Amino acid sequence: MASKAIAIVAGVGPGTGASVARRFAKSYPVVLLARNPESYQDLEKEINGSGGKAIGISTDVANEKSVQDAFAKIQQEFPDAPAAAAIFNASGRFARAPFLELKPNDFEASWSVSCLGAVHFSQAALPLLLKGVEKAELSPTLIFTGATASVKSNALMSSFSTAKYATRALSQSLAREFAPQGIHVAHAIIDGVIDIPRTKGWFTDKDPLTYKIGADDIAESYWQLHAQSKRAFTNEIDIRPMMEKW
Amino acid sequence: MASKAIAIVAGVGPGTGASVARRFAKSYPVVLLARNPESYQDLEKEINGSGGKAIGISTDVANEKSVQDAFAKIQQEFPDAPAAAAIFNASGRFARAPFLELKPNDFEASWSVSCLGAVHFSQAALPLLLKGVEKAELSPTLIFTGATASVKSNALMSSFSTAKYATRALSQSLAREFAPQGIHVAHAIIDGVIDIPRTKGWFTDKDPLTYKIGADDIAESYWQLHAQSKRAFTNEIDIRPMMEKW
Amino acid sequence: MASKAIAIVAGVGPGTGASVARRFAKSYPVVLLARNPESYQDLEKEINGSGGKAIGISTDVANEKSVQDAFAKIQQEFPDAPAAAAIFNASGRFARAPFLELKPNDFEASWSVSCLGAVHFSQAALPLLLKGVEKAELSPTLIFTGATASVKSNALMSSFSTAKYATRALSQSLAREFAPQGIHVAHAIIDGVIDIPRTKGWFTDKDPLTYKIGADDIAESYWQLHAQSKRAFTNEIDIRPMMEKW
Amino acid sequence: MASKAIAIVAGVGPGTGASVARRFAKSYPVVLLARNPESYQDLEKEINGSGGKAIGISTDVANEKSVQDAFAKIQQEFPDAPAAAAIFNASGRFARAPFLELKPNDFEASWSVSCLGAVHFSQAALPLLLKGVEKAELSPTLIFTGATASVKSNALMSSFSTAKYATRALSQSLAREFAPQGIHVAHAIIDGVIDIPRTKGWFTDKDPLTYKIGADDIAESYWQLHAQSKRAFTNEIDIRPMMEKW
Repeated sequence: MASKAIAIVAGVGPGTGASVARRFAKSYPVVLLARNPESYQDLEKEINGSGGKAIGISTDVANEKSVQDAFAKIQQEFPDAPAAAAIFNASGRFARAPFLELKPNDFEASWSVSCLGAVHFSQAALPLLLKGVEKAELSPTLIFTGATASVKSNALMSSFSTAKYATRALSQSLAREFAPQGIHVAHAIIDGVIDIPRTKGWFTDKDPLTYKIGADDIAESYWQLHAQSKRAFTNEIDIRPMMEKW
Repeated sequence: MASKAIAIVAGVGPGTGASVARRFAKSYPVVLLARNPESYQDLEKEINGSGGKAIGISTDVANEKSVQDAFAKIQQEFPDAPAAAAIFNASGRFARAPFLELKPNDFEASWSVSCLGAVHFSQAALPLLLKGVEKAELSPTLIFTGATASVKSNALMSSFSTAKYATRALSQSLAREFAPQGIHVAHAIIDGVIDIPRTKGWFTDKDPLTYKIGADDIAESYWQLHAQSKRAFTNEIDIRPMMEKW
Repeated sequence: MASKAIAIVAGVGPGTGASVARRFAKSYPVVLLARNPESYQDLEKEINGSGGKAIGISTDVANEKSVQDAFAKIQQEFPDAPAAAAIFNASGRFARAPFLELKPNDFEASWSVSCLGAVHFSQAALPLLLKGVEKAELSPTLIFTGATASVKSNALMSSFSTAKYATRALSQSLAREFAPQGIHVAHAIIDGVIDIPRTKGWFTDKDPLTYKIGADDIAESYWQLHAQSKRAFTNEIDIRPMMEKW
Repeated sequence: MASKAIAIVAGVGPGTGASVARRFAKSYPVVLLARNPESYQDLEKEINGSGGKAIGISTDVANEKSVQDAFAKIQQEFPDAPAAAAIFNASGRFARAPFLELKPNDFEASWSVSCLGAVHFSQAALPLLLKGVEKAELSPTLIFTGATASVKSNALMSSFSTAKYATRALSQSLAREFAPQGIHVAHAIIDGVIDIPRTKGWFTDKDPLTYKIGADDIAESYWQLHAQSKRAFTNEIDIRPMMEKW
């Protein structure tokens, strides 16, 4: 398996991250990054037990050293392997609060995961993505998960939206810098509530199949971004459930 | 074949339209609309001769009566058939010129195809799309082909961009109105030069495989929009070649 | 008064148009264009009776010949006069309706005022604006009045928003083409309900002084755009009342 | 002078900050914040020597304690004074570099001034702005200076643009949260090169009066934002020189 291309997913939890990992595991060994091993252990077993290959690594994306350590382990596990895809799905805490009740630290906590974490991850992943450009069947792909707050900054959302706007800026700059080097960078605006255990109690009077976003469906859209030809890169998509008002 | 869902492509020419028709013909009988029968005759034969089903209808999308006549023929040919997809790919003339040298008629000519044509087409196609909602495996889909000029209005481009901005507004309004009824409406910003016979002489010093957009690759992206679950509709994508500056 | 610069306001009614005319009449003779003379007659008297100079001309901006006739009269009345400012404030009918209940003509009616009218007006006004560039104290200014629907296209708003998006595209293209020639082109997104006789009955439970936009206040902002130095052109502003949700 | 409203400018240097301070000093005592006293000392003397009132306070906006200390001094100097205007004009370092040559610290350095500094400043200034709402003639105003990189994130600009996008998100959230409380929040996209000592050598073959933005002209636009009625708040403006390509 030495130099077979791998996929790396940062921010694996019970929602989008896990679905993305499962989807990309159909084609690549996948690396699962999450701060808490509980976030990836079951998934790791599930993928390894069903014909795929997965390894989980406990990683705090907000911490440069932690990310570097994770990528050192990746290279130990998959020596010389290029990356086919790297998906950054981590997000800082979402603190909905009046601005004067927030602490500067709320902004830092949000930014240090969503944006600085994305910087750490991209700096570690891009060399592996670049390594795969020549031989890859599909263009090596770097995807960032955004949110409504990546493009609209509502009242009470400042600590979250400042960080998400920043991540979108990162994605756009990287898309422009690395496309000429063969890397496909894309940003996804997830505009709606994702149907995950944590949101089970939301909208209980409404059909979750049309009012909530399916995590597997996001994953499928990410795969289709990855599958795009270099003659037709999409750099930003929005994703919302059928019944979303926007 | 009475009630099998069909796909309808308006604006079939040697580029995106033909590619889209070929792609959707793998799954549906396709209707090819173009003003000039020369634009679709070869394609019609090609699809019919390779296991698909296509019919071409000479249609001027800028003319309401002509569009209504075309849809009357469609219903004759495919009685009771719902539409699985309707793709509006027509565009008014692109007149790059100083504003004071343009005639009001240049604006009208551009708008009456790009925007009014899209209105005529959508009003005829939406009832057929709605008819298919309940039984369709994939959400019935209405796609509009946009351009860089749909979101950026440069100097000398006013007659083209006014019409393309308008079409994007149409797409966004229809997306919001018809999603709750089960229709997936999407707008594609084609940001770059498409590799078609007409652009063969452009960028001859550059690799067309990375500097130009592949029409087949646009078609594949359109298909993937169509294939999206109702739990993850994308309403706008941008598409550009790897080497595009933006 | 032969060659003193004039201001021309298209779309004079009881709201923004009248306020803009009054504001610019403090510095320039003003020309009031409206289809119906009742829309400008009182204002014309008011301005002429209070130390200013105004002439009203019945004009249908959607009709090229009508606009050309109006500008012929302007040149008769103010021979050789350059234009200091031209404000396009006309807007097509606002038909809030489901798309399948609209007629193509609803789109045409909206577009032929908002966009084609803006083309007619700009083609007639720009030569007069250009004539004033060298001697003008303030950069000759062309302003277009936009709306929420210039940047957001909600359900049921398609006939209005297609036209308003188009007008914004026109403004942006003209801004880029004519700035190097010394003309300041700006677009104003009026995002809220203007406090005019027609909206008197709206929001009666709310304070009109904070929930509605003041027409005089829009006019003041337009004047400040006009007053901007060529070292700091603003090409787009949004305007909303303090209590607006957006 | 006890309770006369004051204006506070953060990021006073030889360009926009100084011009803004001079402009607002015509109406209010002004507080000049900059890290290095050399940035404000001459200006402080100039304003105090020409009939105005100014005090400079050495402040590192990236440091919460430093900002709190500055506002403590402000309240000592102007007991009970409300703020009429607070302008955040500080910006992190602009490091144009390939992404893989940047250090995570480059992102942090940029963000901690542009965004976190804006948070510190806004949290200290908003209570003073709110204090003035009832009696103020002009709505208390909070303005953020943005840049081209606030809305477009080019290659090599990631460390700068991530921070500037974030600041714009902050401005939009605060605009929505504090307008109902009477505060006018605005964001200015400065799209071009400002004519300041540091840029003297740029574009030497071109007319600086049309190719560069005048700092005094930015200041005048900021004043006009401040002067807007609560019936017509503008929340975002772009500012560029006549000859800018955009």
